[in-house]
Amino acid sequence: MTTHSFSSKRLTIIGVGLIGGSLARALRRAGVCDEIVGCGRDEVHLQKAVELGVIDRYEIDSATAVSGADVVVLAVPLRAMVTVLAEMVAGLAMDVVITDVGSAKGCVVEEARSLLGEHLSDFVPGHPIAGTEQSGVEASFAELFDHRSVILTPIEETDSDKCARIRAMWEAAGANVTEMAVLHHDEVLAATSHLPHLLAFSLVNTLASLDERKEVFDYAAGGFRDFTRIASSDPVMWRDICMENRDALLEILQHFNNDLKQLEEAVRDNDGEAVVNVFSRAKTTRDRICS
Amino acid sequence: MTTHSFSSKRLTIIGVGLIGGSLARALRRAGVCDEIVGCGRDEVHLQKAVELGVIDRYEIDSATAVSGADVVVLAVPLRAMVTVLAEMVAGLAMDVVITDVGSAKGCVVEEARSLLGEHLSDFVPGHPIAGTEQSGVEASFAELFDHRSVILTPIEETDSDKCARIRAMWEAAGANVTEMAVLHHDEVLAATSHLPHLLAFSLVNTLASLDERKEVFDYAAGGFRDFTRIASSDPVMWRDICMENRDALLEILQHFNNDLKQLEEAVRDNDGEAVVNVFSRAKTTRDRICS
Repeated sequence: MTTHSFSSKRLTIIGVGLIGGSLARALRRAGVCDEIVGCGRDEVHLQKAVELGVIDRYEIDSATAVSGADVVVLAVPLRAMVTVLAEMVAGLAMDVVITDVGSAKGCVVEEARSLLGEHLSDFVPGHPIAGTEQSGVEASFAELFDHRSVILTPIEETDSDKCARIRAMWEAAGANVTEMAVLHHDEVLAATSHLPHLLAFSLVNTLASLDERKEVFDYAAGGFRDFTRIASSDPVMWRDICMENRDALLEILQHFNNDLKQLEEAVRDNDGEAVVNVFSRAKTTRDRICS
Repeated sequence: MTTHSFSSKRLTIIGVGLIGGSLARALRRAGVCDEIVGCGRDEVHLQKAVELGVIDRYEIDSATAVSGADVVVLAVPLRAMVTVLAEMVAGLAMDVVITDVGSAKGCVVEEARSLLGEHLSDFVPGHPIAGTEQSGVEASFAELFDHRSVILTPIEETDSDKCARIRAMWEAAGANVTEMAVLHHDEVLAATSHLPHLLAFSLVNTLASLDERKEVFDYAAGGFRDFTRIASSDPVMWRDICMENRDALLEILQHFNNDLKQLEEAVRDNDGEAVVNVFSRAKTTRDRICS
């Protein structure tokens, strides 16, 4: 077993789904936690997590769940963060470090600022760039974060030792950790994750309308399956992400719409050179980034 | 070896790339062709196809290549069809059957009507719904069409025996064959293939512009890779497809733009219910069609 600089006597994960569950499994694999406590609203779900060996025990009340924990991970949907932050704060230990896994960071930071009080310096906002179109603890697996990026977005109040501790936690879970400003994170993720999800959901929805009259899906090939895989993601989670990262998403959407409009005009005007220029640049870029 | 109702003494494939090469390999696997002749503009490429055992021999001149062939398959890019049709027609045998593999059918049918003369009844327009983002004979493989759909779009002049012969050829190659009207084909493929390609190329191009200032691609996850895989397709081939199926593509693009505009408004107005309705319908549809 590798020796890690991270260890925890009691780590509490609020929200034991795909991400929270996979983090628990990864940290167990690394052997760095004495005890992992789960917390959530659905007791059946938490019992399942215990049966699967993902967590040791669970609490329903989040202030009780975080009591005595030296690490707290918030892995609930973005829109539930505000409630969890408000509820758990009274139970936090003095030496705690808190992180989250939210796909947008500006909204979580804003909520943390208004709710964490003296614990704001203990908060290290984070986002593992990993996931599948599955959800729930049953879909969790220890390898989810192996060699994947985790972005931490510490704010000026964040204690640097606490930030180092969360970095070490994610490294123990197999991830590569980088740091980025909150706003920059939200712009980058809007571009490479949130907008693609919005487009995939929107396209499948449009074709579903047409499919009432035409069997459009009967001849969908592999390219379509790949392109629309992310449209099988959890609708509520993605509603939250789009809403909570609205500004950055709408800005990149405007860029996309402007460029698509130009491409549409080129197709309409039979301007093959303009079309092939766009396609070639896209292919070159995509081949480079996904080689 | 399975007995097939299809056999050919000399089958000529004009355009020995991913599709043409894979068809040759599949028909060899089935043992249904005595001789497969390749034709194209690039002699180095054709020699490679001979070395790989994909074709038996080749010709550069298409009228010579089709001479004595009982089956001719046009597997060139859409925009090259008109030239090939014009050049080869003088060499066609009386008992020939001709098919093509173009991703749009209206444009090919129009060209065939104006160029094939008395051979128009020998022409069976076709489209195998198969491919990868690779191109070239080196990427071809015998299994490409196994259990995949091939759509034939016979026109009123098409001889029904010739249509049956091409159906049998594709079945020997492992495919499932269906028939469809030309216009319907072009609408369905615009929706499930051509529009997704346009969107994927356009998105990657937009992000490439932003990437000059921001490292947007550094944190692209698996979802992005899947979503943009088709943006690694051949730019010239896809320019041709978008141009040649322009009317159907622009029509479905208008539907998409209208629906995306509504979704954008819902995000802007914080109308979570409208957003989740679109996402849920998309997920349900996608899970159903890709289960």
